Amino acid sequence: MARLVAVVRWFDRTPREVTRSLLRPRKVVAEGDRVLLQDLEPRLDQYLGQLLALQLVVLQQAGQAVAEAPTLAAKANLVEALRIVSTRYRDLVELLPRDVEPLVAMEPFYASSERFAKEVAGADWYEQVLSLHVTTGLLTDFFAAYGGGLHDDDRDAVLRVLTRETGQPLLARELQRAIQQNPRLASRMALWGRRLVGDTLLQMYLAVHGPEDASPAPAQRLEPAFNDIVAAHTRRMDALGLTA
Amino acid sequence: MARLVAVVRWFDRTPREVTRSLLRPRKVVAEGDRVLLQDLEPRLDQYLGQLLALQLVVLQQAGQAVAEAPTLAAKANLVEALRIVSTRYRDLVELLPRDVEPLVAMEPFYASSERFAKEVAGADWYEQVLSLHVTTGLLTDFFAAYGGGLHDDDRDAVLRVLTRETGQPLLARELQRAIQQNPRLASRMALWGRRLVGDTLLQMYLAVHGPEDASPAPAQRLEPAFNDIVAAHTRRMDALGLTA
Repeated sequence: MARLVAVVRWFDRTPREVTRSLLRPRKVVAEGDRVLLQDLEPRLDQYLGQLLALQLVVLQQAGQAVAEAPTLAAKANLVEALRIVSTRYRDLVELLPRDVEPLVAMEPFYASSERFAKEVAGADWYEQVLSLHVTTGLLTDFFAAYGGGLHDDDRDAVLRVLTRETGQPLLARELQRAIQQNPRLASRMALWGRRLVGDTLLQMYLAVHGPEDASPAPAQRLEPAFNDIVAAHTRRMDALGLTA
Repeated sequence: MARLVAVVRWFDRTPREVTRSLLRPRKVVAEGDRVLLQDLEPRLDQYLGQLLALQLVVLQQAGQAVAEAPTLAAKANLVEALRIVSTRYRDLVELLPRDVEPLVAMEPFYASSERFAKEVAGADWYEQVLSLHVTTGLLTDFFAAYGGGLHDDDRDAVLRVLTRETGQPLLARELQRAIQQNPRLASRMALWGRRLVGDTLLQMYLAVHGPEDASPAPAQRLEPAFNDIVAAHTRRMDALGLTA
């Protein structure tokens, strides 16, 4: 538990600090202490159970973003994001081993996903859309890396589903338009983005360690593994004109 | 306007009465007074504009039904309905003439669809799911028939999209399970179903006539055209053990 608290504190820093600290401990690699996400070997049913439970969160965010869109144009555009996440959910369900029901696979991760959903819910439509953009980006990158440790065929199938289609460009366009029309949104969005990255990184940490913190990969050894993921997030925020 | 009021009154009857009155005027056919929906010749952009605006309503209902599902099992099942309606929306957008933007096509029908959305919203999850089941069933049957008057290629393409996949069986299963677990739901659901059929038939009437009631097909001549549509609805309600 002490280790979890340490990580939460670590996630509490701003992403720039996080990136810096991720970039710093290069010598750790030399000491053979670095753990790559793809070196972990998750069980397919557990991997997919976590991923599906989180997709269910993202999917409901997308549904809400469609429902609360301020214009017909935004609503119609966001339907495409909803189509992509619901199709991805179906495609991931089909990758489960034959004898594993989706509900059974998701069940252990569902409560934690629901808590995550509340944390990243957002106070209004703009926050919802940024949340959808940021959490989907981070989670997709994370699960793509974490899936590297799956059995070859499973890994390829999962990566195909995760990378087949993305709603990121359309979400970015909606956000860019909103910020352009109301530049005062930018600082609130930047702040919200920082909260989102913290909450989502914690969710990733829990995905690897489990809430009981019984994983063989200690947090400090995993830090470098999140490097690329956070860097990609920073680029996405930059593209929106927001400070990560 | 007088004619619209008359039709609203007509829709005010229970579906059984409606079916009876649809079955009654057989002699009207002999008099050459019958108008089949497929005899009307809608313009493709208007037809798709109406259909897309209503799909947007159904889609948001599906999103809400996922979000408010009482169990993880129901939530996971309903994702499939959401995937089907959001894919259908995308496929219909692709059938629009190249020079017609989806928003432009939908715009004239959007306000009326939003009103419709409020009428069929439902007070809780059970009513939402019945609404999704009933309105999707009626609207799909209606637009399949009404699409019969489109140009050959367009008609075939539209029918392919409308009939490719259906979420009806899974919605029926959810409703059957809910009613089985709580038989007292049945009478409330039956009542709600009757309201839904009235509201949806009115929406179909407006689709054909336009709110200005300037269509060449008078309401009394269209009544027989709704016969099959209402009969299919009655069968769907019967399958749920509910009196239509």
